[in-house]
Amino acid sequence: MRELDLPDLDDLARGAALLGSGGGGDPYIGTLLARAAITRHGPVRVVTVEELPPDALVVPVSMLGAPTVGVEKLPSGKEVHAALRALERVLGRAATHLVAIEIGGGNSMVPVAAAAETGLPLLDADAMGRAFPEAQMVLPTLSGISTTPMTVADDKGNTAVIDAVSNHWAERIARAICGEAGCSVYTADTVLTAAQARDTLVLGTLTLAQRAGAAIRLARAGHADPVRAVTDLLGGAVLAAGKVVDVSRATTGGFARGEAVVHGPDGTLVLSFQNEHLVARLADRVVATTPDLICVVDTETGEPVTTEALRYGFRVTVLGLPCDPRWTSPEGLALVGPPAFGYDCGYRPLPS
Amino acid sequence: MRELDLPDLDDLARGAALLGSGGGGDPYIGTLLARAAITRHGPVRVVTVEELPPDALVVPVSMLGAPTVGVEKLPSGKEVHAALRALERVLGRAATHLVAIEIGGGNSMVPVAAAAETGLPLLDADAMGRAFPEAQMVLPTLSGISTTPMTVADDKGNTAVIDAVSNHWAERIARAICGEAGCSVYTADTVLTAAQARDTLVLGTLTLAQRAGAAIRLARAGHADPVRAVTDLLGGAVLAAGKVVDVSRATTGGFARGEAVVHGPDGTLVLSFQNEHLVARLADRVVATTPDLICVVDTETGEPVTTEALRYGFRVTVLGLPCDPRWTSPEGLALVGPPAFGYDCGYRPLPS
Repeated sequence: MRELDLPDLDDLARGAALLGSGGGGDPYIGTLLARAAITRHGPVRVVTVEELPPDALVVPVSMLGAPTVGVEKLPSGKEVHAALRALERVLGRAATHLVAIEIGGGNSMVPVAAAAETGLPLLDADAMGRAFPEAQMVLPTLSGISTTPMTVADDKGNTAVIDAVSNHWAERIARAICGEAGCSVYTADTVLTAAQARDTLVLGTLTLAQRAGAAIRLARAGHADPVRAVTDLLGGAVLAAGKVVDVSRATTGGFARGEAVVHGPDGTLVLSFQNEHLVARLADRVVATTPDLICVVDTETGEPVTTEALRYGFRVTVLGLPCDPRWTSPEGLALVGPPAFGYDCGYRPLPS
Repeated sequence: MRELDLPDLDDLARGAALLGSGGGGDPYIGTLLARAAITRHGPVRVVTVEELPPDALVVPVSMLGAPTVGVEKLPSGKEVHAALRALERVLGRAATHLVAIEIGGGNSMVPVAAAAETGLPLLDADAMGRAFPEAQMVLPTLSGISTTPMTVADDKGNTAVIDAVSNHWAERIARAICGEAGCSVYTADTVLTAAQARDTLVLGTLTLAQRAGAAIRLARAGHADPVRAVTDLLGGAVLAAGKVVDVSRATTGGFARGEAVVHGPDGTLVLSFQNEHLVARLADRVVATTPDLICVVDTETGEPVTTEALRYGFRVTVLGLPCDPRWTSPEGLALVGPPAFGYDCGYRPLPS
């Protein structure tokens, strides 16, 4: 058990935004929520999976929606609590631990805020080892664990409890509600036992994100190269560097979809995204694809750039980081490989 | 208490389709469901509001969606049951009686089918005294009764429980789910006590619909004028008669919206509809509006024509029937008057 306190939040948000592969929601709104909650209720207890009691009830809480909307439409601050309480009513049992559904800017901070508010310990793990745009795109799906019961809460005070025939249908129904409620809602879903948490989550990712965020900060303070510092830590490869010369983006179907073009000495890199960066093409050749992480950082400061913040003129470095190995199994690729997002290329392992 | 059995179904469906003001869903799919359920489980007990015990829990069950879809997309037959059971789980109590949310083709038959399947008695009443397209457009809304908890079930086996901050938000969320699930779902909502049922429902409408359906049938059998027979029974006025020369119709936002043009000796009548007929203009003059009933019947057979069945060449008579007087209160008109549907005219009482 360790404590997560106010001074840790910026490193965590920075590192999570990096590991989120450009997605996971705006890190700053999430950080505001977490900062307010910790200021009011005190630090959060972070526990490892080994510390879970056998009868633990681990509940992932998260924001669902288009990040482009998330940066403009402020939450009421009561949504996560409402989603969690609605889920507990359905389960007839209280959550014992919270966890992040994904490592990504906002969605790493939402469970921190909820843990501070509820006093529940936060499990050092997440269900993707990165961020993905859809609710069924979690490792527990590969183990047959149901997304539902899933609860959705909006900023107005509306809640819904979904019970779906498949995890994909849970996503479709939640996304439909999300769209009607203004493209940004909060959810609690994919309830896990202690054993399921141990077997299906990516462990230690909260700590890893915090360390990555600290590495960037410390390199900058020591006048070292922050991009080098973070690739040294995470083992990633630089795919390209250059200047963002074009971004096309639309908020459609509850997602932020689009493409960004980066001009650099190695040629033109095109990033295709759907909340997260999913395919990178360099000089028309696919160089990285989902489920591997495609991360964009400011070349000078090392600060991660999320898909909704990308714009013309940014000088960026694009990194490729290997995903959790379970994602590159045939079942994993069927769920989150390029064709699952409508791209016509297959999975291409990162250059080694 | 009386029994509703197989020979009653056609009269009920015909009369309900008439009173539905062109809406309420396809009467024939609903009749098929009711016929199958009664054949399997026996007749339905129909009770009056006076027969309700004080601790009754009265649950309206209905179909929600676009009637244009309802005629093509067959239900699995398990939806109503799923919606009812999901609602009972949330309430922690079993329904004691079922009731129709509206008098309209399909939605008068859906509770008959559910009553046969569950063995629950059916209350002789409905929550509109006609049909309206949206969930909040019920008389209980005028008395501050909540639409939620509201459950939604689709043909695939998905269910959702909605808890909304207003009846309008319940509609919006249910409609969003409906659209995603294929524009046709089944719902249980607006739970009523015995006292609430007595004070807020339109009483006796199931029996009235059955009598109207029988009047049309009997007039036809006796070579009398079926339109005359039904206006004699219900006290309606003939607004116009003629031939349908144009129908424009789109299934948008989970509704069937459009206009129909009827040419006749009195001039051109234009019917504007959104699932139900809502405004009638004769020679550009508004002659009838929601909440009064605007009913279209085949001039020769007296058979009601629903908005999704209307087409070029039909010879029709358009009737205006007065609505329940609570609808023409200022609160009633705010909820279901022409502006509530986006029409720019005020309520116009029927010609007397």
